[in-house]
Amino acid sequence: MAEQSCIFCKIVAGEIPAAKVFEDERALAFRDINPQAPTHALVIPREHIASLGDAVESHEALLGHLLLIGARVAREAGLAESGFRTVINTGAGAGQSVFHIHAHVLGGRRLSWPPG
Amino acid sequence: MAEQSCIFCKIVAGEIPAAKVFEDERALAFRDINPQAPTHALVIPREHIASLGDAVESHEALLGHLLLIGARVAREAGLAESGFRTVINTGAGAGQSVFHIHAHVLGGRRLSWPPG
Repeated sequence: MAEQSCIFCKIVAGEIPAAKVFEDERALAFRDINPQAPTHALVIPREHIASLGDAVESHEALLGHLLLIGARVAREAGLAESGFRTVINTGAGAGQSVFHIHAHVLGGRRLSWPPG
Repeated sequence: MAEQSCIFCKIVAGEIPAAKVFEDERALAFRDINPQAPTHALVIPREHIASLGDAVESHEALLGHLLLIGARVAREAGLAESGFRTVINTGAGAGQSVFHIHAHVLGGRRLSWPPG
């Protein structure tokens, strides 16, 4: 179910534009509007799930699908050799700003440790 | 299949100790030996998958399971309110040091952006 006030649901519905890099029947990926690396995409499910903390067992395959799409997007961006980092923030305190679950995929530059 | 030289396969087999915080038939979670936050756990599948870049579609549910276990571990560590960050490094260039896929779960301190 789409949440009326959710910006990512609006992207899913095509009501707000996004620089899509992948989409299928369950999910889509698009460029982060505030990129933190040469490649920085977000992968989201079409279904509205507020955060990883709200995901339940029936979402298992969908969550894995998001990770596999992220790997695919990274590969297509030429990051298979140099590597990439996948990040999911859960809760405002961890940096989550849109409450529709999303996996960040970053690569194309040196990624330091710790991850924030 | 366990990889003979893989330190995480040895943890799965019980040949190397780890501070486990969760385990079931498909996966386990344990404290990172070099923690970067008050809570810093690793979630790994029992099956040896070298990296997210090596995961295939049949791993979809298992990958999602790792994320859900991470959320559970975070919840049990009292991070439901303050939030947590889940990070998967793919490739040495992204900071992956053990080539058995693992999700880092970090929380209990302020997490900055970008994530490394």
